[in-house]
Amino acid sequence: AIVEAVRAELSSGPLSGRRIVVTSGPTHEPIDPVRYIANRSSGAQGTAIARALAALGAEVVFVTGPADVPPPEGVEVVQVQTARQMLEAVEAALPADAAVFAAAVADWRVSSESGSKIKKQPGGVLPVMEFAENPDILAGVSQMKEGRPGLVVGFAAETDDVLAHATAKRARKGCDWIVANDVSPATGIMGGTENAVVLISDAGAEEWPRMGKDEVARRLATKISGALAG
Amino acid sequence: AIVEAVRAELSSGPLSGRRIVVTSGPTHEPIDPVRYIANRSSGAQGTAIARALAALGAEVVFVTGPADVPPPEGVEVVQVQTARQMLEAVEAALPADAAVFAAAVADWRVSSESGSKIKKQPGGVLPVMEFAENPDILAGVSQMKEGRPGLVVGFAAETDDVLAHATAKRARKGCDWIVANDVSPATGIMGGTENAVVLISDAGAEEWPRMGKDEVARRLATKISGALAG
Repeated sequence: AIVEAVRAELSSGPLSGRRIVVTSGPTHEPIDPVRYIANRSSGAQGTAIARALAALGAEVVFVTGPADVPPPEGVEVVQVQTARQMLEAVEAALPADAAVFAAAVADWRVSSESGSKIKKQPGGVLPVMEFAENPDILAGVSQMKEGRPGLVVGFAAETDDVLAHATAKRARKGCDWIVANDVSPATGIMGGTENAVVLISDAGAEEWPRMGKDEVARRLATKISGALAG
Repeated sequence: AIVEAVRAELSSGPLSGRRIVVTSGPTHEPIDPVRYIANRSSGAQGTAIARALAALGAEVVFVTGPADVPPPEGVEVVQVQTARQMLEAVEAALPADAAVFAAAVADWRVSSESGSKIKKQPGGVLPVMEFAENPDILAGVSQMKEGRPGLVVGFAAETDDVLAHATAKRARKGCDWIVANDVSPATGIMGGTENAVVLISDAGAEEWPRMGKDEVARRLATKISGALAG
């Protein structure tokens, strides 16, 4: 009843009636039943964005990998492990007015995944792992011929040449905005509570000062709200 | 003051005056600043064992990888990421009366670790990863010529032929006991609250019924206490 009361109140927000898909967290790509490859991501920024969008009245579908932080209240949560599962969940959540791809999706999976635990070999013989490219969710949705969300926002976590890499990524993927940040260990952004991002769009690059991840989320949600209204 | 009061009370337990090293959780082996290889381990069983040993009065050094569950109170906590860091922390914690190696240590690390984020290559070209064998902490400590803990307990998380694999592991590593379990996804043990273990020692294999991880920990702590007293 409380949830419904809150929802009723929220339905008066500027994003009321808008459906937005948000991905968040890492993906885990299995090597065998006990080992996996992962991307570092606490899920903090994606979770904050989903919460901020919901606070503006949006109907949010939150597709999340195994994150450190709990998912936000008041949104539809879909929990996945792998990039392929994330793609399926995103496709199932469409159509939507906007999509925000904040998840740190593994670019590669292990194509030689073993159903039983790989045993250590005597004599220091190392396992052979074969990799395959994972589906590119951001590019796939950005380049949809039909039913593409009106606004597609990607993220670029970089450790060097942030602006150049992120600008190239935006062009390559075909998304509308890229939220780029420098996740070098020295910045303390990964796993921390603050973020320093550059928002790249048709209008160029807009550098935001370092601020809390919640504040980044509120600013981004307000900007999305403006774009969808415009 | 509360901690000291509790500690004073505990100092009367059967493990009072005994120093025990416990490892727990997974290790994370970096591929680059944003990607890593990990073993699945919540750290629940290792944490419960450290707590149970401390409850019997032991001085516990708890060396833990990035676990899902918080470390126990009243023990010395050393947090590490990689297998090599775990080995260093264990060596620094010795000498000890007993060592319980409950961590799920990655057998391999990526020797081609990159200091900057590996970029996805156009045309589906896949990254080449080179692996190296990690140090074998259980075997290393079990086979110490001088200063070996009086009791060394290893763990064997298996997905098939549990008893055979675990018995072979005990002989190969040179540890005193192996706590073996079946972590096949169907058992629900990995990430769950229960465990079903077989304790393998000189006396043969002792199969314990499925019970809570806390109860497994208490039984094991009592058994360790008996062995150190004997």
